[in-house]
Amino acid sequence: MPASPIRKLVPYAEQAKKRGITVYHLNIGQPDIPTPQSMIDAMHTLDVKVIEYSHSAGILSCRQKMCDYYAKHNIHVSPEEIIIGAGASEAILFAVQTCLNPGDEIIIPEPFYANYNGFCISAGVKVKPIPSSIETGFALPPIEDFEKAITGKTKAIMICNPNNPTGYLYSKEELEVLRQIVKKYDLYLFADEVYREFCYDGTTHYSVMNLEGIEDNVVLFDSVSKRFSACGIRIGAMVSHNKEVMQTALKFAQARLSPPSLGQIAAEAAMDTPESYFKEVIEEYLARRNTVVEAMGKMKGVVCPTPKGAFYVTPSLPIDDSDKFCQWLLEDFNYENQTVMLAPATGFYATPGAGKTEVRISYVLNVENLRKAMECIDKALKVYPGRTA
Amino acid sequence: MPASPIRKLVPYAEQAKKRGITVYHLNIGQPDIPTPQSMIDAMHTLDVKVIEYSHSAGILSCRQKMCDYYAKHNIHVSPEEIIIGAGASEAILFAVQTCLNPGDEIIIPEPFYANYNGFCISAGVKVKPIPSSIETGFALPPIEDFEKAITGKTKAIMICNPNNPTGYLYSKEELEVLRQIVKKYDLYLFADEVYREFCYDGTTHYSVMNLEGIEDNVVLFDSVSKRFSACGIRIGAMVSHNKEVMQTALKFAQARLSPPSLGQIAAEAAMDTPESYFKEVIEEYLARRNTVVEAMGKMKGVVCPTPKGAFYVTPSLPIDDSDKFCQWLLEDFNYENQTVMLAPATGFYATPGAGKTEVRISYVLNVENLRKAMECIDKALKVYPGRTA
Repeated sequence: MPASPIRKLVPYAEQAKKRGITVYHLNIGQPDIPTPQSMIDAMHTLDVKVIEYSHSAGILSCRQKMCDYYAKHNIHVSPEEIIIGAGASEAILFAVQTCLNPGDEIIIPEPFYANYNGFCISAGVKVKPIPSSIETGFALPPIEDFEKAITGKTKAIMICNPNNPTGYLYSKEELEVLRQIVKKYDLYLFADEVYREFCYDGTTHYSVMNLEGIEDNVVLFDSVSKRFSACGIRIGAMVSHNKEVMQTALKFAQARLSPPSLGQIAAEAAMDTPESYFKEVIEEYLARRNTVVEAMGKMKGVVCPTPKGAFYVTPSLPIDDSDKFCQWLLEDFNYENQTVMLAPATGFYATPGAGKTEVRISYVLNVENLRKAMECIDKALKVYPGRTA
Repeated sequence: MPASPIRKLVPYAEQAKKRGITVYHLNIGQPDIPTPQSMIDAMHTLDVKVIEYSHSAGILSCRQKMCDYYAKHNIHVSPEEIIIGAGASEAILFAVQTCLNPGDEIIIPEPFYANYNGFCISAGVKVKPIPSSIETGFALPPIEDFEKAITGKTKAIMICNPNNPTGYLYSKEELEVLRQIVKKYDLYLFADEVYREFCYDGTTHYSVMNLEGIEDNVVLFDSVSKRFSACGIRIGAMVSHNKEVMQTALKFAQARLSPPSLGQIAAEAAMDTPESYFKEVIEEYLARRNTVVEAMGKMKGVVCPTPKGAFYVTPSLPIDDSDKFCQWLLEDFNYENQTVMLAPATGFYATPGAGKTEVRISYVLNVENLRKAMECIDKALKVYPGRTA
């Protein structure tokens, strides 16, 4: 498995810090938003003698709470249709192992979350990327592109909605296009919806679970960790109406015994988090997104869509090579003893050479620090030796 | 992936309980011993604003504490030689994915912990079992048997010491035999040592990490969860001096982002658990083992070795078929409204048809309940329609 472009940068970031330089981390999906107090309280009042294994599919009361949560989002499932995993990561791995055999193919619009590749490699599954374009703000590729990519070995299409790394929110119409392809070719539709709540500008999220006529094809991935800024609890879920899929996935879940119990106890407490929490959080992220998009829009040669969801944006910069640029930012550049760490978009493309002018920015810092970070990028683009505009 | 024989019994146990029958669970490795208070306290005093991802290899201070713990057991490693996993389960999966390719073979003396099979299937690796025998108390099979099983595709040998499901504790001499085979054929030696502390009758555990001349071949698996009766925290580890193996394994660890943070915080607190905790726990388990072995020894037609470690024993019973017997115990039998749930040993053998007269007993109940459970087995063997003695 190749090292990701972000990982390769870590030593350079460490060296920059050793030289006394402040590094703004826009490279990671670790929000700085406080974890809801209910989750911390659940640990403070933990009342057990033995921290036991849970059911392999997760603590029943936690799955029931998840069902209540989903019902609020117009997704109607029962606890048997949920398997809790150690993060969405494990849930995705279970689904890939369950629904695809080694040698099978999965179609994913690129850029896509780099670790999907890792899970597929683990299962011997081949990722077939089809390009989405910055010119459309990374909208769903046209139906013809999907049909061209489908072979006899294609078993699934995977999307992330809202998208990591682009922040793109798929419309109901785009999902309808996917529904038709999935139905026509009888494929699985995997959808990572961990950023469901993070939708801006009056948009709403439409879940694949509500696409009619493909109920048995759809597998949803979710993460409590991301939603509640509690990445460390490692609680995600695989959700599907397909009984056979859930039965097989449960065997993989049983092989690793149980998901983390403490995280599940915290997750269960989180489900009662009032809507006001999200309202505040979303306002904060919106302010952050606007800070980034506005600043980027003023930089010469930068193309930056205004994403409607998640907390990522993938602009195109006037640079020769995003891997080199991101390394240079850490190794050779600073502005008033500050610099930024960005994620080269090359890591989000499976097509060799793609994403060379793009970077992913995670807006997980407060507005003040984001402004400083944007100033660094602005100054950096003016002096970067490999600039192209 | 086939359903395990234990899982198949679960509905029968549930039905028995619905009929008002007390079921003594000797089928699982979930100890009833209290989790050390230090671990619960670590949650009660949790002092964080955001429950963040940890380093993909685990929180550094937790790995450092693990090093201190290992040093007390004469195992000398640095934090870079440890990757923390979601239980030993994940650590084993990382190692199989790292050290073996699809189609490669791994030799495991059987009976062995059933989930090893699952991890190997996940990685496309073939398990080649070689039989150990109840007649030697499940000692290491002779060296010739290993050499007969080795092919050009063999990449590793795996042991569990002390053993699940047999409780057998490998001697230093047996490990020396393994050392020679591993060196001669340049294989990996995987060793699951999660029951290290649980050694009885004055025996001591010898770790594969101290076998000389094969430092780069050895990969150790460990579990904080089992040791401290905190299975639900899902904290295990993969430990190796082999730098290349650890580098590759870290990439698999990075693909799933991080192990559970709350569990790691609890685990770190656990490392300071005083030796007196283990002394009490081991005395308790010893009393339990003796209860089981003595009771079994008095039953006609039963062969029951006296294992020196872990909390399992795998006796042979005078029965036609352990799967049928275990189901019958739940479905058709009760003694004074009580019965037992046992694990058919067939699930611990990869060789079809093997283990048909054996069951695994986990002595994870207190002595009083174990006595009642043994009485049930004694009565059951007298009336079981498929009895052979």
